[in-house]
Amino acid sequence: MADRDLPTALDLPMTDPLPAPTQKYFDVCTEKLGMIPNVLRAYAFDIDKLDAFTGMYNNLMLAPSGLSKLEREMIAVVVSSINKCFYCLVAHGAAVRVLSGDPKLGEALVMNYRVADLDGRQRAMLDFTAKMTTASATIEEADRQSLRKVGFTDNDIWDIANVAGFFNMTNRVASATDMRPNDDYHAQGR
Amino acid sequence: MADRDLPTALDLPMTDPLPAPTQKYFDVCTEKLGMIPNVLRAYAFDIDKLDAFTGMYNNLMLAPSGLSKLEREMIAVVVSSINKCFYCLVAHGAAVRVLSGDPKLGEALVMNYRVADLDGRQRAMLDFTAKMTTASATIEEADRQSLRKVGFTDNDIWDIANVAGFFNMTNRVASATDMRPNDDYHAQGR
Amino acid sequence: MADRDLPTALDLPMTDPLPAPTQKYFDVCTEKLGMIPNVLRAYAFDIDKLDAFTGMYNNLMLAPSGLSKLEREMIAVVVSSINKCFYCLVAHGAAVRVLSGDPKLGEALVMNYRVADLDGRQRAMLDFTAKMTTASATIEEADRQSLRKVGFTDNDIWDIANVAGFFNMTNRVASATDMRPNDDYHAQGR
Amino acid sequence: MADRDLPTALDLPMTDPLPAPTQKYFDVCTEKLGMIPNVLRAYAFDIDKLDAFTGMYNNLMLAPSGLSKLEREMIAVVVSSINKCFYCLVAHGAAVRVLSGDPKLGEALVMNYRVADLDGRQRAMLDFTAKMTTASATIEEADRQSLRKVGFTDNDIWDIANVAGFFNMTNRVASATDMRPNDDYHAQGR
Amino acid sequence: MADRDLPTALDLPMTDPLPAPTQKYFDVCTEKLGMIPNVLRAYAFDIDKLDAFTGMYNNLMLAPSGLSKLEREMIAVVVSSINKCFYCLVAHGAAVRVLSGDPKLGEALVMNYRVADLDGRQRAMLDFTAKMTTASATIEEADRQSLRKVGFTDNDIWDIANVAGFFNMTNRVASATDMRPNDDYHAQGR
Amino acid sequence: MADRDLPTALDLPMTDPLPAPTQKYFDVCTEKLGMIPNVLRAYAFDIDKLDAFTGMYNNLMLAPSGLSKLEREMIAVVVSSINKCFYCLVAHGAAVRVLSGDPKLGEALVMNYRVADLDGRQRAMLDFTAKMTTASATIEEADRQSLRKVGFTDNDIWDIANVAGFFNMTNRVASATDMRPNDDYHAQGR
Repeated sequence: MADRDLPTALDLPMTDPLPAPTQKYFDVCTEKLGMIPNVLRAYAFDIDKLDAFTGMYNNLMLAPSGLSKLEREMIAVVVSSINKCFYCLVAHGAAVRVLSGDPKLGEALVMNYRVADLDGRQRAMLDFTAKMTTASATIEEADRQSLRKVGFTDNDIWDIANVAGFFNMTNRVASATDMRPNDDYHAQGR
Repeated sequence: MADRDLPTALDLPMTDPLPAPTQKYFDVCTEKLGMIPNVLRAYAFDIDKLDAFTGMYNNLMLAPSGLSKLEREMIAVVVSSINKCFYCLVAHGAAVRVLSGDPKLGEALVMNYRVADLDGRQRAMLDFTAKMTTASATIEEADRQSLRKVGFTDNDIWDIANVAGFFNMTNRVASATDMRPNDDYHAQGR
Repeated sequence: MADRDLPTALDLPMTDPLPAPTQKYFDVCTEKLGMIPNVLRAYAFDIDKLDAFTGMYNNLMLAPSGLSKLEREMIAVVVSSINKCFYCLVAHGAAVRVLSGDPKLGEALVMNYRVADLDGRQRAMLDFTAKMTTASATIEEADRQSLRKVGFTDNDIWDIANVAGFFNMTNRVASATDMRPNDDYHAQGR
Repeated sequence: MADRDLPTALDLPMTDPLPAPTQKYFDVCTEKLGMIPNVLRAYAFDIDKLDAFTGMYNNLMLAPSGLSKLEREMIAVVVSSINKCFYCLVAHGAAVRVLSGDPKLGEALVMNYRVADLDGRQRAMLDFTAKMTTASATIEEADRQSLRKVGFTDNDIWDIANVAGFFNMTNRVASATDMRPNDDYHAQGR
Repeated sequence: MADRDLPTALDLPMTDPLPAPTQKYFDVCTEKLGMIPNVLRAYAFDIDKLDAFTGMYNNLMLAPSGLSKLEREMIAVVVSSINKCFYCLVAHGAAVRVLSGDPKLGEALVMNYRVADLDGRQRAMLDFTAKMTTASATIEEADRQSLRKVGFTDNDIWDIANVAGFFNMTNRVASATDMRPNDDYHAQGR
Repeated sequence: MADRDLPTALDLPMTDPLPAPTQKYFDVCTEKLGMIPNVLRAYAFDIDKLDAFTGMYNNLMLAPSGLSKLEREMIAVVVSSINKCFYCLVAHGAAVRVLSGDPKLGEALVMNYRVADLDGRQRAMLDFTAKMTTASATIEEADRQSLRKVGFTDNDIWDIANVAGFFNMTNRVASATDMRPNDDYHAQGR
């Protein structure tokens, strides 16, 4: 891929200097992750947009939920596989490998989740995710019922729907702007 | 449609009582719009999720932008038409009719944006929107260039991508949860 | 939409003067509907073609049938929604609103018939209609049987098939010629 | 295929006795074609429906037009190939073989019209036909202009659109009712 | 179709003179089939490639198998119908007609295998074939089980998969190179 | 993924003992690759089928060609990405990483080849490959010409077509039989 200083193909450099809370947030990222994820650098041309994005991202992916953090990352990867989003497959594929300790699981979800070694609950969750991504207008009560049947609560269904929805947004933003992932992801969790 | 007290098919009633700032926000909606949009009632089972959603929504649809509010609503309707999302077509179709004062424009965008009477700038914006919705992985520099050619800045392209992305999220959340729009929308702007 | 004197993008003006029976038919339209539907004006460049079209149209949509006139219009709208035909969605969406007295039903059929409040008979009828429109080559005996199971006779199935078939024709003629509906439809039955 | 006395899977026997003009029409068919095409036998359970069908069919396929009879049959076959309609491919594939005296042309149009040996005019006609069949909502002025550029008049374009539209109707009616072609077609024009 | 001396659109003439074993093989073809199939002439620009192709072809289509030769040809035609490969439809459609003595069966498989008069075993075989061709990534154990249920062994399933796979290769090679079938096929088995 | 002794979901154990030449070939694999690729173990239930497969594979992927070995592996990965074949993506994704020394290139081709950093020649080759995989019947002379324009000879085009065709076969065989890749591939070339 071409060398570029900016995280997307748009000429939208980061706010400079960053406001103190943003700088602090980015410092925490560097410390914990060893990098500032490029998606954050991309939104940082406008701090209000960055805050709105991180507000929703952190609620969906990190707040308490009936879905584990790994399960939320699994949804992210299956959505991104269908939409063929390079950024999200690289970043969230790495997250699945790291959180599961199972590199093959990460690869299977990137390539074709139907071959992954999943229990019935996870398979139902990912089938619902896939249907939301490819044909959301055809979802009916029977689809929600199939999630309840394997033990998901209505609160869990909300979370599945919102995580799957969210990556259908970010996949499209990333592809539309040619957002590129940090190189560091590639080697994580192999 | 079946009578239901809840805005979606999930059993997730609103927080009761609402925290004061939420109650105040809902009072403003009632005053200005004559209703509390059901999407807000749906998220109000969890105030953090509601706040994350409104934070992003208000930034995208109401903050200053090179795109007019009408143009952002036009994007919303074209995305929702492709995804066949009843909630978003009803609510944002009404917004297009009201903001444009042109009911035929609202109908055309709901039904097939290619027949709408658009200038070259708006047509390019909606072609990009449609491609993002149906085949985001095939977007390349030439697609962004076609937006720049009709006068959009890179900041505008960011906004087009993010509004189109956002409704690809909300369409799927609405369809996955069977969210239903307030009846009042149907007669607006006819 | 661009101002145009002609009902389509083709330079095919109406026969002038119209033959007496055609003029009389058009006068009845004006009296009963308040307008001459543009589809009739479009075919009137050739009176034989107009007569062949109205002969089939009137038999299908107005002759006695096990399907009510509303049900036939519902089929028209569902076909047109899948094919995204602006002319037919505007004209027959109005017919559904007027015949049912339920504007929400008209909107739901335009946008996504799966969310409409339908009984089992109507839902089966529209599922068959949708399958005929998107994948007719895959229809088999089981599909016809699903119609018989909810009470349709073989004569009714013939009518469903022929009404659904007819709008798969007119949708394509309207889109291929950029046929535009009369403005009056938009406000009907709201 | 299963032996059946009726031309479709629906239990709709022919009117018996046939009215004199219908009997006479069928006698002419037998004399000229050596058979009564099953599509006519299928509609003959209701003489009004039969007359409406033959009225439109004869106008489209036999009346004077800027399109030759062979060209109209070529459109019929290309539409039917995309829709995979067995009845229409058998009957109109035979017509192309007989009218052209070129069995390979008939086969190529049944299988993939892009490999047929066509001049620019016919190729443009069939490309328009294919687009009408698969994606009519995306047809715009440029598509009509591509027909004018190879010499078609607006009247010809009307005829192309209406013949292509018609077979999008009959294909679906035939598949929805499991209509079967007369065996005699198979050997014609080989 | 344009007259061409070469069997494809690529300028790759046959090795000249042919090695003795190839010449002998071609002489046997001429004797038995009355022609050298053009696919062999196409590969004969490189004898190693020809030998690799005929090695696989002869093993799949002619070696002992739980599938009859006719069944293997039926699979070839169904794959080629979905992929719209002119070469393979002409050549293997002829083979089905000749091997079955039933020209209608050949036509039905070319046009839409769902209308062919098949027993349950053959229908299951062709449904599996069609799914492999259009959506192989969605095949799961239940699909293989549906073959076992109608009597196929695991060895037979291997053969179905490999014949269907093979024509998904040759269809694409033929279309990519514009390979044309020998004229003689058209009249065979009518 | 479930532990299985066999390389596919079919109960087809390897010939035992293996004939001497096969045993020798497998020993060479073990020595050079550190494993016997599961695809070879899968075909080894029938040595004639194994030999036909390896004959074609080795000619296509290893024989002299205007395409480098890396380029042939790139084609393999792009085809497999579209078909979502887990086996082939794992095995040939590893080959791209190893042959190119560029793990990001391997990942990009697995996920979405349009984001990979390719020169014009390779991009044209992979666009042709993608079109062959998704819509081979629409390939025409202009597509072949676009390959010649970037320097490919007709002999190279033959090789592109045959490699792309081959993986459209193996992808389907692997998915149809649930063939699983050796675990060793996952860590190669990271």
